Amino acid sequence: MTIIGIDPGTIRTGYGIIDFSGGEHRLICSGVIQLNKLATIPPRLEKIYSELYQIIKKYRPDELAIETAFYGKNVQSTLKIGYARGVSILAGMHHGLYPSEYAPREVKKAITGVGSASKEQVAYMVKKILFLNNKLKLDESDALAVAVCHSGRLIKNVSGKKSWKKFIENNPERVIK
Amino acid sequence: MTIIGIDPGTIRTGYGIIDFSGGEHRLICSGVIQLNKLATIPPRLEKIYSELYQIIKKYRPDELAIETAFYGKNVQSTLKIGYARGVSILAGMHHGLYPSEYAPREVKKAITGVGSASKEQVAYMVKKILFLNNKLKLDESDALAVAVCHSGRLIKNVSGKKSWKKFIENNPERVIK
Repeated sequence: MTIIGIDPGTIRTGYGIIDFSGGEHRLICSGVIQLNKLATIPPRLEKIYSELYQIIKKYRPDELAIETAFYGKNVQSTLKIGYARGVSILAGMHHGLYPSEYAPREVKKAITGVGSASKEQVAYMVKKILFLNNKLKLDESDALAVAVCHSGRLIKNVSGKKSWKKFIENNPERVIK
Repeated sequence: MTIIGIDPGTIRTGYGIIDFSGGEHRLICSGVIQLNKLATIPPRLEKIYSELYQIIKKYRPDELAIETAFYGKNVQSTLKIGYARGVSILAGMHHGLYPSEYAPREVKKAITGVGSASKEQVAYMVKKILFLNNKLKLDESDALAVAVCHSGRLIKNVSGKKSWKKFIENNPERVIK
């Protein structure tokens, strides 16, 4: 199972793809789309979309996880987060990937055990989990953290509470008619 | 000169294309992309983008004008406006159209002369300007209003204040060196 995590923004958009199998996480690729050289928002949105579109096309992840908006300091910054998230979600949808969303607090708790952890603490744990030695940019480790967090929910969905409805769907031959 | 105006939203997105030549406005087409039948945001964003993309592809407008965000009642609604605007801008950019942005107040003033005009007053004037008899949906007339507003700015840019810098750029042979 491969997962792409995205941390969208109009100055930098981080992304990271991991493989999660046999209970182990492995880094496939990660990076940051730098947007500050483009003077205005419209070409930045175009770049976020086109780069993510190409990355998803190349690596074909099975799942897409995205940070729900950190609410900006003001209306303008909230709107900009909305723009970046909108086109990131679109890039996934154009490859048939429906986004799973996680609040920053949820991601931090899943990775470090503490919902109020700093970005540096998250980066430290992401490197531990993925057995990495190299330095990660903060937007990169944030994106990878969302992907790792999503793998945790996938496990829960598999090993969590059993549903009779699901069991019947999966085992139609066990139903006595 | 043809102009597409867009009034983006995740419940309804209005659009309208006008032709503006010889000082007269003429309706080419207008409509509303209905999104409320789709349960979640991601497929709505996909629909806004794909419909606008197809409309722009079909009518090839020369210019794109969009309402700058009406700031939502709360953070969630502001974010949603951001999503809808982001993918609308992207649909234009993918056809080489850079958006011109207008605040709702600016549009209302340009159409009715009053920045605090109601949507109904705007709709009434839009119908007058475009010589229409049929009823327009409010999102449709709002989108057409943005397009008409943009035509006004285009005139101003042509007949407005002269800039020496611009004059020199356009007439390099008139500069004595």
